[in-house]
Amino acid sequence: MGWNKVAMVGAGMIPFGELFDKGWEVMLEEAYLNCISSVDKGFDPQDIKAGWVGTARPELHGQGAQGGNSLMGQIGLAGVPCTRVENGCPTGADAIRNAAFGVASGVYDVVLAAGYEKMRDAPTTGLLGIAVQGHPLLTLGETAMTMFAPKAIRYMHEYGLTKEQMAMVAVKNRKNGVLDPYAQFRFEITVEDVLKSLPVCDPLNLLDCCPQTDGAACVLLCRADIADKYTDKPVYIAGLGCGTDYYYQHEVDSFTSYAATVRSAKEAYTMAGIGPRDIDLAEIHDCFTITEIIDYEDLGFCDRGEGKNLIEKGETERTGRIPCNASGGLICKGHPLGATGVSQCVELYWHLREEAGERQVEIKNGYGLQHNVGGRAIGNSVVIILSRNKN
Amino acid sequence: MGWNKVAMVGAGMIPFGELFDKGWEVMLEEAYLNCISSVDKGFDPQDIKAGWVGTARPELHGQGAQGGNSLMGQIGLAGVPCTRVENGCPTGADAIRNAAFGVASGVYDVVLAAGYEKMRDAPTTGLLGIAVQGHPLLTLGETAMTMFAPKAIRYMHEYGLTKEQMAMVAVKNRKNGVLDPYAQFRFEITVEDVLKSLPVCDPLNLLDCCPQTDGAACVLLCRADIADKYTDKPVYIAGLGCGTDYYYQHEVDSFTSYAATVRSAKEAYTMAGIGPRDIDLAEIHDCFTITEIIDYEDLGFCDRGEGKNLIEKGETERTGRIPCNASGGLICKGHPLGATGVSQCVELYWHLREEAGERQVEIKNGYGLQHNVGGRAIGNSVVIILSRNKN
Repeated sequence: MGWNKVAMVGAGMIPFGELFDKGWEVMLEEAYLNCISSVDKGFDPQDIKAGWVGTARPELHGQGAQGGNSLMGQIGLAGVPCTRVENGCPTGADAIRNAAFGVASGVYDVVLAAGYEKMRDAPTTGLLGIAVQGHPLLTLGETAMTMFAPKAIRYMHEYGLTKEQMAMVAVKNRKNGVLDPYAQFRFEITVEDVLKSLPVCDPLNLLDCCPQTDGAACVLLCRADIADKYTDKPVYIAGLGCGTDYYYQHEVDSFTSYAATVRSAKEAYTMAGIGPRDIDLAEIHDCFTITEIIDYEDLGFCDRGEGKNLIEKGETERTGRIPCNASGGLICKGHPLGATGVSQCVELYWHLREEAGERQVEIKNGYGLQHNVGGRAIGNSVVIILSRNKN
Repeated sequence: MGWNKVAMVGAGMIPFGELFDKGWEVMLEEAYLNCISSVDKGFDPQDIKAGWVGTARPELHGQGAQGGNSLMGQIGLAGVPCTRVENGCPTGADAIRNAAFGVASGVYDVVLAAGYEKMRDAPTTGLLGIAVQGHPLLTLGETAMTMFAPKAIRYMHEYGLTKEQMAMVAVKNRKNGVLDPYAQFRFEITVEDVLKSLPVCDPLNLLDCCPQTDGAACVLLCRADIADKYTDKPVYIAGLGCGTDYYYQHEVDSFTSYAATVRSAKEAYTMAGIGPRDIDLAEIHDCFTITEIIDYEDLGFCDRGEGKNLIEKGETERTGRIPCNASGGLICKGHPLGATGVSQCVELYWHLREEAGERQVEIKNGYGLQHNVGGRAIGNSVVIILSRNKN
């Protein structure tokens, strides 16, 4: 089942982390080389007819005008058409979505989708951060923390979620991250560690949060009917979804759900012709522990208010009913905005091809789901459903 | 002839200028309302299934995270999928290109492409500008002026172009702008005025340059086969082109041509199945007078080194063989990056439907060409060919 007009035939990324010794150009180049080297039957870069590159905050590290040539100029393909996409936290995923449209439109047979973000060696506070982002207090206190923490407070009030249950999300993802050589954090923690970690913005503590990280990732897409030129094990784009919400926090309808996710998930499931129960694994947006709990519900993995049961019963563990963030998620890998969504699809590609090594989850139905939500007022979401089933 | 999978059925913009009294939200809303009001047979906003919004430098006016909800959240369509595109000077045109892929992919029947930029009420020099853009000297002197002026020097050396001939571009475009109620500058100037205006960056004087401007523009696109629901006079997307060049100035192959333009024009002409001689009018990138001269050659309107003859002989006048910038171009309208490419397509839409009033050019073959080039190292270009011919 599914759209399946576009196939993924290569995928690569670099280990995420504090990459002070690598410029964004080198990060992109390495991810690109890992991607094209991954193509089973070999790959000629001249086959790439267009590109899409996601980067959300280049101005934070002094790059104010990153157009399409920031990708093509660096990987030896100057000339090739390329669009830069920015869409908040789903930036990388939306680069893939637009790349898929480029292929499905019939205009390009083979395209590259890439994402990167360099977040560690530039100030996000201090003078530069204030100039770029606005002063955190003068701009109505809108920071990532102050957007997500109130959701946790309201959700705890409405559904009786506890801090311990939120902490379990971090514990699960940290456990998974130990097995992921691409993750920034690779050591286990306990619920007590989370509860005792520094409070950042009530009710979220330090270990409830994903880190800031440098990273890059790439995927190669082509027309589904020519995928066998590159591999006998293509992964298809079964469904694509995107959704928005209001631009200002005070306008949104709910503090216990992300409307943008609900919309994008609905679009993706409809296009794929499947439902949440058909998903074998999901890489979902856990920028904070509360986010993953709400994601479970917005993505239809459980009913409203049942997210806490899913995590308590271990259903989203790597060996559970619906493994979520087998990679360790944003909490372990970090969240280099432009790279995050692409890297989630790279992870799904590996699992659907049963190449994820020690952290491989069981593939039953053949579907994996990618999800991001964020940006201004948490008002942008992308969901991509990948499948190893041609029909 | 042409691709013609996607039709333009509505187009609107706001008068460009120093719009200190309007926030970007209001600018976008007004352009959107003008666009949907222009639909001949009426339009229900619920028909819009996805959007693309171009804005290149929102961080310059304190907006650091403009995702898709910056459009949809403002026009009463929160929920609807939306991607933000940034691609330097072709940002707005690339939003249209990606919107067209969204329609041609078969995923969306009707979509909105919008662009905006607010450039006047935020510092582009001073502390904020330095923080965001990098100090103009410390960053190797790379400003718009210092990227384009050396091209003029080299071009003058190679082809004997004079300052007088460059000035003629400004004189022609200013003459056209008088007739365009959407233009920022609406008074004629002389060659002498240009030559006597303040030197900005040798050999370019103040009147060789386009101004910095606030503006917004929108177009409605739909599947070509359902266009008659909205209008009996649709304009089709006959061809789309995009091209890149190297990321650093010192890597580019030529100082008298923009490789990104050559690439994007070739792609667009091939897709449209036509050549430069079939174009009835063109809205092309005249950020500086030298740029328009080089555009003539890169777009195939004349041979290499012949650009000066084209302007001297009046062939690109509104009544000439190949009218260029009947709107007044960037030199009169200004260049609000995200809005520019969209507004060029709005202008072509009006001319191809013979609704451009006093400044209407003669439509013979039925094709109009849009062009931008710019961004880092002038390394990104988009060309869109619109047509009123279905086949």
